[in-house]
Amino acid sequence: MSKSKDLFVSGPVAVNLGLESFHRSLLEQGASSVHVDWRPPSPAAGLLTRLDGTAIDAANAEGLRRLVDSRAVLVDIRPAHEVVPGLDEGVILHAGPPVTWDRMSGPQRGAVIGALLYEGLADSPERAEQLAASGGVRFDPCHHHRAVGPMAGVLSRSMWVFVVHNVTFGNDAYCSLNEGLGKVLRFGAYSPDVIERLRFLEKVLAPALAEAVRRSGGINVRNLTAQALQMGDECHNRNVAATTLFLKELVPHLLASDLDKGTIGEVFRFVAGNVHFFLNLSMAACKAASDTILGLRDSTLMSTMARNGTDIGIRVAGLGERWFTAPAGMPKGLFFPGFSQDDANPDLGDSTVSEVAGIGGFAMAGAPAIVQFVGGTPADALRHTREMYEICTGRHKHYKMPVLDFAGTPVGVDIRKVVSTGITPVINTGIAHRNPGVGQVGAGLLHAPFAMFEEAVKAFVEDQNRFEDNRGSPKGD
Amino acid sequence: MSKSKDLFVSGPVAVNLGLESFHRSLLEQGASSVHVDWRPPSPAAGLLTRLDGTAIDAANAEGLRRLVDSRAVLVDIRPAHEVVPGLDEGVILHAGPPVTWDRMSGPQRGAVIGALLYEGLADSPERAEQLAASGGVRFDPCHHHRAVGPMAGVLSRSMWVFVVHNVTFGNDAYCSLNEGLGKVLRFGAYSPDVIERLRFLEKVLAPALAEAVRRSGGINVRNLTAQALQMGDECHNRNVAATTLFLKELVPHLLASDLDKGTIGEVFRFVAGNVHFFLNLSMAACKAASDTILGLRDSTLMSTMARNGTDIGIRVAGLGERWFTAPAGMPKGLFFPGFSQDDANPDLGDSTVSEVAGIGGFAMAGAPAIVQFVGGTPADALRHTREMYEICTGRHKHYKMPVLDFAGTPVGVDIRKVVSTGITPVINTGIAHRNPGVGQVGAGLLHAPFAMFEEAVKAFVEDQNRFEDNRGSPKGD
Repeated sequence: MSKSKDLFVSGPVAVNLGLESFHRSLLEQGASSVHVDWRPPSPAAGLLTRLDGTAIDAANAEGLRRLVDSRAVLVDIRPAHEVVPGLDEGVILHAGPPVTWDRMSGPQRGAVIGALLYEGLADSPERAEQLAASGGVRFDPCHHHRAVGPMAGVLSRSMWVFVVHNVTFGNDAYCSLNEGLGKVLRFGAYSPDVIERLRFLEKVLAPALAEAVRRSGGINVRNLTAQALQMGDECHNRNVAATTLFLKELVPHLLASDLDKGTIGEVFRFVAGNVHFFLNLSMAACKAASDTILGLRDSTLMSTMARNGTDIGIRVAGLGERWFTAPAGMPKGLFFPGFSQDDANPDLGDSTVSEVAGIGGFAMAGAPAIVQFVGGTPADALRHTREMYEICTGRHKHYKMPVLDFAGTPVGVDIRKVVSTGITPVINTGIAHRNPGVGQVGAGLLHAPFAMFEEAVKAFVEDQNRFEDNRGSPKGD
Repeated sequence: MSKSKDLFVSGPVAVNLGLESFHRSLLEQGASSVHVDWRPPSPAAGLLTRLDGTAIDAANAEGLRRLVDSRAVLVDIRPAHEVVPGLDEGVILHAGPPVTWDRMSGPQRGAVIGALLYEGLADSPERAEQLAASGGVRFDPCHHHRAVGPMAGVLSRSMWVFVVHNVTFGNDAYCSLNEGLGKVLRFGAYSPDVIERLRFLEKVLAPALAEAVRRSGGINVRNLTAQALQMGDECHNRNVAATTLFLKELVPHLLASDLDKGTIGEVFRFVAGNVHFFLNLSMAACKAASDTILGLRDSTLMSTMARNGTDIGIRVAGLGERWFTAPAGMPKGLFFPGFSQDDANPDLGDSTVSEVAGIGGFAMAGAPAIVQFVGGTPADALRHTREMYEICTGRHKHYKMPVLDFAGTPVGVDIRKVVSTGITPVINTGIAHRNPGVGQVGAGLLHAPFAMFEEAVKAFVEDQNRFEDNRGSPKGD
């Protein structure tokens, strides 16, 4: 009785499930509405029951242990051709899943042109394009060569790379040195000043830093990351503290070397002047961690997530080298003066290796100041991290966020949880201009597309069934 | 009807006003209780109605403007006797309100002994004590000499000081250089290694840093503080980011100087090895800001808050140089291994100039990691900042906390609000051993005692009445 009376006194309250726009429309019309964030389950969700949960849970626990226990140490800086396996003459590595020149995004094309000019393989942008289009270059993902590259992620033989050693598991990973923001190769720029800066990196910066790194006996990157996460960085798009801490480690060794004060000063100013310098080193560390689960049988953990500006792709631990791709999404964010969303290229770069390893977008709760760079509010940053706990297998024991009472960051994305919740990994990223030759135009946020996780779950079910068949113990269905 | 029925269904709920312990007892006995944080109004609260609110509000608005607009720049580092006014032969400055040797706390006595040994005015701790006790030393607060000193705050002629210039208002302020944690002069230690470190500061560190500071053309301390507040520091007990940012500013100038690489390395390692190094510089900057309101007519803003380990004292802008004191409180916190609350000396140091200027305990919301050093939880840190808004006149326009949606820190404590709310400033602080010669034993938190704010309000009312009388316009009452 009293409830029906209440209906006439207070008016009806709509409970909206699914599309939030219906809820907003009701509110705009002055009606009461409560929104429930519910999505219809994916058809792939039904497949989850056909998986061997016990074996997968055990494998994922092992995968989580590997991701979290990996201790990455910067042990050297070397020319890429000396250390990166398979980086032969005529090979150019790039970010994201495999892609051919004809499908390659503008900024990635721009970076390839720049790399060919830098390597002396072409003497004009036009010749470089001809060379690339004619099949004279062999393209391959960085990820296939123990390497990662931010944005276009173009890596060529003469570039120097951070050599990061995973002390716990013995594997190495590589990443080029960060050039700075704006008009730089990794965002697709290739003008003479861009090439000149690459030469400075090759001739002055990298050799000097290498000297200091060797003298240091190794810089503990995991430790720097853990400290930076207590200082407002999330170590993907905000590396303010981490870069400064890295410099603090290096300076005594630079001063103890034979380098003259002028060179040390030049090197110091370059690194100190680029708050993103630590990103590439962090990416190599995350690659060294995530490579430990590549091919881990029965594990549904995401081992790779990377974009080439055309496609985004993931790999799943238990499915080895196989990519599951979808069209790259479009980040929403903040743009540099003079640029807008219309200038943006779709999502680009291997830097999502950060999120695979439990930092970046997943650790945003501890880095509220980042919203000034990627947009949104500190409450959004908190929400993103909380949401990622729902699709992760565990919490990082070394990477903690004071603001969440020192909770570990969410780590180890389980594709089963993605498919059952409908929540996909959050990514925060730089935004490149969609045309070659321009560079960075902003930074922003997006979620990875759902479809590739559905495909991956389907493949996983097929694979497990095949595996069961091969073992001669077919499933009941 | 329905309400009385509810009483028998749900049982009574106590509403508890005042002492929280009653509320806790009820909960422990399984009863329902809601606690209302209410305190009986202070007798001084009644006096507030006798104040000229309009004139005070206008004066406080001007005071707030001065505190917030002050831009402190580090322009030099110099021997104290060259720059600190009135630091004559035989004078030793100390933290807090005035105090005589016979009432001086253990750690402050220890620091005085150390300073006399360091200055060559005594050749043994015993002789130093005799000299101090016999009236052979003139003691005076740092605050009376445009200076501040952390903990014991002992400043003698040969120590070098940061020279901070308030570019906006033209005044200067001074503070010694930070020696590090543990067994150091400012915590009351005076063993030979403590004196030797002071000599290193005087002969090597300070001259080298001074060279770099002069070459830099000035280091903007307000800007470094603003950055550090976005990086998890509150710049009183946590200066991890600020110290590193300060070093980052200095290194290029050290490298450009005539100093050799060995000396630069030694200086770098000393500063980089002390995460509190920035504190003293920050204190000088806060002193430069807070001195601008000293003597500001009609203003009820707290212009000074300082402790000597025996007493805590405040000064009020409109009441000029007059101190209002109370026994120094006892911080609760975390202790270094081997020490406990029993070892703690009461609250000590001029470092509460941080809270006067709107940072430190007032900015804890943005520095949740600090609870690992001073105790409590990140939720406490948030609560402290929120509480301080209730007794402050405004928000800092340069010092912002990302976690509170970039709200400015609370700044400008109004003694009227303290008396009407019963909330006193929160302080986070180092903890010294209560005996001379030991050093730091921990770090913690406390609130300033209420009584001195009551006294200050009474004095303000008397002063304003007298002032009104002198102007020949007596008040109606």
